[in-house]
Amino acid sequence: MTNRVLEMLVAHPGTREESYDAALEECITACLECSQTCTACADACLAEPMVAELAGCIRTDLDCADICHATSAVLSRRTSPDERLVRAALEACRVACDACAQECREHAADHAHCRICAEECRRCEEACAALLAAWG
Amino acid sequence: MTNRVLEMLVAHPGTREESYDAALEECITACLECSQTCTACADACLAEPMVAELAGCIRTDLDCADICHATSAVLSRRTSPDERLVRAALEACRVACDACAQECREHAADHAHCRICAEECRRCEEACAALLAAWG
Amino acid sequence: MTNRVLEMLVAHPGTREESYDAALEECITACLECSQTCTACADACLAEPMVAELAGCIRTDLDCADICHATSAVLSRRTSPDERLVRAALEACRVACDACAQECREHAADHAHCRICAEECRRCEEACAALLAAWG
Amino acid sequence: MTNRVLEMLVAHPGTREESYDAALEECITACLECSQTCTACADACLAEPMVAELAGCIRTDLDCADICHATSAVLSRRTSPDERLVRAALEACRVACDACAQECREHAADHAHCRICAEECRRCEEACAALLAAWG
Repeated sequence: MTNRVLEMLVAHPGTREESYDAALEECITACLECSQTCTACADACLAEPMVAELAGCIRTDLDCADICHATSAVLSRRTSPDERLVRAALEACRVACDACAQECREHAADHAHCRICAEECRRCEEACAALLAAWG
Repeated sequence: MTNRVLEMLVAHPGTREESYDAALEECITACLECSQTCTACADACLAEPMVAELAGCIRTDLDCADICHATSAVLSRRTSPDERLVRAALEACRVACDACAQECREHAADHAHCRICAEECRRCEEACAALLAAWG
Repeated sequence: MTNRVLEMLVAHPGTREESYDAALEECITACLECSQTCTACADACLAEPMVAELAGCIRTDLDCADICHATSAVLSRRTSPDERLVRAALEACRVACDACAQECREHAADHAHCRICAEECRRCEEACAALLAAWG
Repeated sequence: MTNRVLEMLVAHPGTREESYDAALEECITACLECSQTCTACADACLAEPMVAELAGCIRTDLDCADICHATSAVLSRRTSPDERLVRAALEACRVACDACAQECREHAADHAHCRICAEECRRCEEACAALLAAWG
């Protein structure tokens, strides 16, 4: 995965300073993987016998999946970015991943899918924060 | 459209205070319509002979479409909302719609699709701002 | 809603034969509204005390929402359409809406959101079928 | 990436026969990566000086990205799948990837992003075909 994201960044005619690429590549990859993980976690929660207790977790998973997906697409575009827009997307993604990591961590002891999802959300939240920091 | 969004809000077992519904209904509807309008505007720009001059507009259209879609989904969910997450999505949507409205307005005199899209983005930006204000 | 979709179709530089527009406009609108309705129905099901019995309904709602959204975007693009691709998307959307209409109808007597969603899915399924038929 | 997708499949309470997992895991991963690659290729095309000649390619990229994303979500859900719906999504994805692979291959000699995207689309088309075949 990482390789494809990087290959496409390098192939883009408008790619900017090399020094940003590592944080950007990691953030695109993290958003993409986190979106899939949250989608899968919502569905795994739905199949648990105690689904009624996981309604809040499913809801946060679905929100986080949608926002991560949108953010991965925004970050994948390198043509004429509107900096304010890109930052606002990153900030929303950071918040969504933090909320979902907290929610899933509460169920991590009971469900492996929530444990994995909490880790993935934390990784994505950190990738968004790192990219915002790298952009100053 | 408006009717379906409202009907579904009313049918939800967890719908909260009536007084929030008008701003919420309008914001869900505006996000949904703005997402479609931006998708259509990006494609209409692509078919213009002067497409090279519209690259930035197409890019902003696509970003705005993705963020509006994610926001419409987040707002359509009424089960256990994470307030910080919902606000961050609304804020990102407000910023994206403002950026796209500004970009499209520059081409409004030349292209009806950009004029319509600028109006739709402005309406959506205002609906997001109004909902944030209503939530205090 | 309908008006914006139509306005954007008319504003597109590449819009084709007038005679296709009514079926196309209705199908884009139906896909968009059905996607939102399915997203809202999945969340309303999640808030029901008997959510465990609605797991299959939630799952089908989410699939249908994703496919309707993708189809509304594909149909909103009028530049150089690949006919085989557009037809395959419409066919998948028709099948997804039929599956979701059947699933939601089973819960229509108990939940208004499922009754509304079943109607919306049936409408969208018919709009996809009508567009496929109009395209011969 | 591959590891996360597999971990989540294994963590799902309803995961079915082991023998299906390799094809399913590869197809989810391929859909996810292809969606990102097509999004990036559309944007890279947009930044090319000869963008007017790439309008059809951009359009097909965007369609393929949307359909691959929806398909990756449908496949990531393992609770009560509707077989007809899942197959229809896979079939639409197979067709979209084939169309995009053909379109991008025409520009592969001129643009590395189109070459990479053509390869990714072909891989995803094969993953969808393999999964349909594995399901008999």
